[in-house]
Amino acid sequence: MKKTATTVVQFQPEGISVSLEAGESLLDAARRAGVYVASFCGGQGACGRCRIKVLEGEVETESSISPTIKDKLGEGEVLACRTSPKGKSVLVEIPVDARLGEGKILFDEDSFADGHEDLASNLPERFPLSPVSQKIYLQLDPPTIENNIADYGRVEKALYDKGFRIFSVQYDVVQNIRSILREQDFKVTATLTRSGRSGWVLTRIEPGDTSGSHYGLAVDVGTTTIVVNLLNLATGATVAAAARYNSQFVLNFGEDYIARIMYAEANDALDELHKAVVKDISELAGDLLERADVAEKDLNAILCTGNTAMMHFLLGVDPGGIRRDPYVPSFNSIPSQRIRDIGFPGNTHARVYLMPGVSVYVGSDITSGAIAIALDRAEELSLFVDIGTNGEVVVGSKDVPLVCCSASAGPAFEGSGVKFGMRAAEGAVESFKIGKDGEVSCEVIGGGKPRGICGTGLLDAIAELFRAGALGANGKFNQDFKTPRMRGCDFECEYVLVPKSENAAGEDITLTQADVDNLIRSKAAIYAAVSTLLSQLGLDIGSIKQIYIAGGFGNFLNVESAIAIGMFPMLPPDRIHFVGNTSLAGAKMALLSNEACDAIRDVASSMTYVDLMQNPRFMEEFMLANYLPHTEIERFKGPTR
Amino acid sequence: MKKTATTVVQFQPEGISVSLEAGESLLDAARRAGVYVASFCGGQGACGRCRIKVLEGEVETESSISPTIKDKLGEGEVLACRTSPKGKSVLVEIPVDARLGEGKILFDEDSFADGHEDLASNLPERFPLSPVSQKIYLQLDPPTIENNIADYGRVEKALYDKGFRIFSVQYDVVQNIRSILREQDFKVTATLTRSGRSGWVLTRIEPGDTSGSHYGLAVDVGTTTIVVNLLNLATGATVAAAARYNSQFVLNFGEDYIARIMYAEANDALDELHKAVVKDISELAGDLLERADVAEKDLNAILCTGNTAMMHFLLGVDPGGIRRDPYVPSFNSIPSQRIRDIGFPGNTHARVYLMPGVSVYVGSDITSGAIAIALDRAEELSLFVDIGTNGEVVVGSKDVPLVCCSASAGPAFEGSGVKFGMRAAEGAVESFKIGKDGEVSCEVIGGGKPRGICGTGLLDAIAELFRAGALGANGKFNQDFKTPRMRGCDFECEYVLVPKSENAAGEDITLTQADVDNLIRSKAAIYAAVSTLLSQLGLDIGSIKQIYIAGGFGNFLNVESAIAIGMFPMLPPDRIHFVGNTSLAGAKMALLSNEACDAIRDVASSMTYVDLMQNPRFMEEFMLANYLPHTEIERFKGPTR
Ligand code: FES
Ligand code: FES
Repeated sequence: MKKTATTVVQFQPEGISVSLEAGESLLDAARRAGVYVASFCGGQGACGRCRIKVLEGEVETESSISPTIKDKLGEGEVLACRTSPKGKSVLVEIPVDARLGEGKILFDEDSFADGHEDLASNLPERFPLSPVSQKIYLQLDPPTIENNIADYGRVEKALYDKGFRIFSVQYDVVQNIRSILREQDFKVTATLTRSGRSGWVLTRIEPGDTSGSHYGLAVDVGTTTIVVNLLNLATGATVAAAARYNSQFVLNFGEDYIARIMYAEANDALDELHKAVVKDISELAGDLLERADVAEKDLNAILCTGNTAMMHFLLGVDPGGIRRDPYVPSFNSIPSQRIRDIGFPGNTHARVYLMPGVSVYVGSDITSGAIAIALDRAEELSLFVDIGTNGEVVVGSKDVPLVCCSASAGPAFEGSGVKFGMRAAEGAVESFKIGKDGEVSCEVIGGGKPRGICGTGLLDAIAELFRAGALGANGKFNQDFKTPRMRGCDFECEYVLVPKSENAAGEDITLTQADVDNLIRSKAAIYAAVSTLLSQLGLDIGSIKQIYIAGGFGNFLNVESAIAIGMFPMLPPDRIHFVGNTSLAGAKMALLSNEACDAIRDVASSMTYVDLMQNPRFMEEFMLANYLPHTEIERFKGPTR
Repeated sequence: MKKTATTVVQFQPEGISVSLEAGESLLDAARRAGVYVASFCGGQGACGRCRIKVLEGEVETESSISPTIKDKLGEGEVLACRTSPKGKSVLVEIPVDARLGEGKILFDEDSFADGHEDLASNLPERFPLSPVSQKIYLQLDPPTIENNIADYGRVEKALYDKGFRIFSVQYDVVQNIRSILREQDFKVTATLTRSGRSGWVLTRIEPGDTSGSHYGLAVDVGTTTIVVNLLNLATGATVAAAARYNSQFVLNFGEDYIARIMYAEANDALDELHKAVVKDISELAGDLLERADVAEKDLNAILCTGNTAMMHFLLGVDPGGIRRDPYVPSFNSIPSQRIRDIGFPGNTHARVYLMPGVSVYVGSDITSGAIAIALDRAEELSLFVDIGTNGEVVVGSKDVPLVCCSASAGPAFEGSGVKFGMRAAEGAVESFKIGKDGEVSCEVIGGGKPRGICGTGLLDAIAELFRAGALGANGKFNQDFKTPRMRGCDFECEYVLVPKSENAAGEDITLTQADVDNLIRSKAAIYAAVSTLLSQLGLDIGSIKQIYIAGGFGNFLNVESAIAIGMFPMLPPDRIHFVGNTSLAGAKMALLSNEACDAIRDVASSMTYVDLMQNPRFMEEFMLANYLPHTEIERFKGPTR
């Protein structure tokens, strides 16, 4: 059946063309073309993020768009999700500030650089090297007529003698066991993968000693970014690392996981989202194996952490319960799976391990993160805050059982919902200094011309504008502040941080009043989550001795700036630690040590989740925190320096 | 590529034609046509069993056949394995006495009839109903905002509360758990299959209460016959039963397992033999499910017993070690496998359980059989003898650890290696009376005209001929015995048991001197195995209080006849029990009860195997037993009646 004639849509600056069936939107076209268009609401016409500029050709736009969103559209801009092409061809452009950063994603080595504490390069003392998959070299006695127990039984007994109880064996192991044992005179290497707390699956037997060729992948499956580390399971060393944007994000399935779940349901596309993330991990794994010159067959375990929704997408399991009262996920904790069962290509022996989460809102990124910073062993009461689209907060110590909560912080600190916000990638401003005269100096990731501002830069900008007096305590631009950089007024007001002439964005990089409002809402949500949780537990902010801040929002946060704007409570700066990607750090520990796996499991099953949405105090705290640094200024007795 | 022109071979009486490539033998043709031709040596030209009559067309026969075998070929007969067609077409016929009985195979209900003790219809008290696969009906609390643990966690906890520890879950269970739980308001049925001694795999969740629809298959994988029972795992009842010849046998891969291993090695045909037995079981299972109106998805476990070689073929695992010094099989005991991994079609959730054996010579047919007759709980010292191509002997009691041995009895009592021998199928003579005048009366299975003689009939014939005086104590026909039924002399001598006019074989049914020699060798091997084992353990025959005889060699053995020819030691007949197919009985118990599984495992790991071939006493005993009833007649002080 020949399809009916269609329109061709070409995207600039990529230059990619796709043809479109009648009834499909420009967002569908972008999805098909693999071109990133921001789509925070998943294509509902509600977020106004999918702005796209029509350069040539005719389009048809739905009229039902809200005036507030319509007002924010620039000259020639339309909402891609509500717009269809009309003629034979359309040429469209993604606005500069809506493009996806093309620079390399900061990860691992980078994100643990400088001010960060590298949690994962070595296992802490409490976790001995005992990976979830192990290769055991066995020098078996060759059988004689007096000792002629079966080949499989001989291997099983030798493993049992070394403390491994085998309760399952993969079929192909037994199939050829006879010739394998005899190839190198009963010297063989058995590969075991763990299943449950005390049992092992025998997944392979190889002739000779191959115990040195044994690798595993630790994966942080982020909503936006997927970061993988290839580890040598024989030595515990990190061999190679890589990261990429989550294709679910690039392919416009929605910016946050709720939007993606809605997209999956509306389009019966769970499988599509599932395959996207599996493909991402497979391709990253393939790259790393090639770079490290490791054979695919020697990758024996893939251990993943991430929020609850991402774990559902990764497995291809119905995530519908995540966004519906009473917020019941399909699973929080699940035994390991064979990689081929969940659609991974390659080594059919390898297993995928998903670390356990606590609830819909608190996934294994948090449980693993808590173990990575040893919150369960903390001598003093400590706070763990993971800042992403959601801010998760965990409080506890070795004596105080861990309690956690989660608040929707919005994606502002990840660079979304802010006009020139971008991920912490090359070309992002990561720090600002703003003088009393309003003049601006900045540092750019990679050292080139700025293209946008990442989370740490945004936080700095707010703090510096506030210190300089350009922003008032109410979070509004101060019209009395005299500088040519400030223009427009009220809602339209914006501050030029990097003029067009000095940047690579093609227009002035500004911070708008709307951006400031978004950022203040985000920091207020985090502060409110922390203070509500503490007050619910009857704890005073003063009792918190250490704060650990994790998240992919920037390279290294300026502690003073964070405190200055009231994001964190007033504490001596040396008690605040930026710990980078703790989800990945925890994944690496779990991959390398069964004891770490068990610790994560213990944390997941013992952690109490407090639902802030049910708590009227949270709203109150949130309103109070919508100031710089806070309405109750006595909570912040001035900058700490 | 067009194949070169070939010869067409047609088989009578089947009327099946196949074309044959150059270089292929008539035995290859029979294999391809699915026509049974006896081939005891697996096509080596050594057994002389693959006789075939050339009716039309030219053939070419290898000249290297031994004269002894050549002498036994009838008019126009050739060895199929050493003969190739020459012209364009050949018409051949399978000699009547070499045809496979087409009547139904006796099994289960039939073989437990009359004199037999039904061991499997009910579980003995020691084994509670606790099948290897269980369906558990769960009435879960629907989640609320206060109790919103994950769907999978909810199921896992409910199962844990009922005593089931889940260490593995099949992927598709989790995939749809959300909708399944909600289909019937959180009332679901979980299917669990056991793996290891204390863990369970969650293989399925269904909405509502389906716990009543739960079935398992018990399979006795015999070298010649495969017998299956379909059991309702919810009630323990046997629902349906079926049997067929093992296709490995029908397709001429060799009559005994050693021949089949050789065939597999010579032709790289392990996979072919593997697929044959999997297909047999699948087809039998399909028949039973249809007959019992059971859905394929409700067959959740297949539990198999059989000799060590058959277990290797069933899994498709290299059996090469079985026939080579130092006699090390690839496995004796192995964790359960997913049915699809080993090539079964259908329900991917079901698992295959293979019961553990002891050694190359003592398979799970024996360990399961020992548990079926509760040898490990016997109050008094007891003997368990399983008579097939190999005779296995186990001695022990609740106080005396089980010891076993195995002796090659030859297939005479299974009807092979005897001119008119046949399986215990319709048309087989199963009992004889022979008067002092040499006149013969007989009983035929199915009541029709006789086509041959089954094991029990052969045993009767020898005993009756001996009693009548037609056979001497030396096992030779007595030329002084006057009857027209005896003809020829010395090696050529034979006794007409059923003249052509009264039978369906198309010629006189006789017992030849060679047949008698074979049968006496068989009974001598069994007797020698028993007596050697006992003497090695320092036990006197008098200390044996009970003897249990198992095997598919006939419907019900005449105890007096067996003792009269010296097959078993002289004991009061009420101490000798014919227990039919104990391998199947044990398989049924194991399928229905984890405790039975464990008992079989315990027996397999604690049983001592004694190698008779290493024992000079065995040869001596064997020689002494090559008489009727025995050289040392004082061991048999006359018939017991
Ligand atoms: S408005 Fe188009 S994706 Fe949200
Ligand atoms: S002689 Fe032909 S099969 Fe044995």
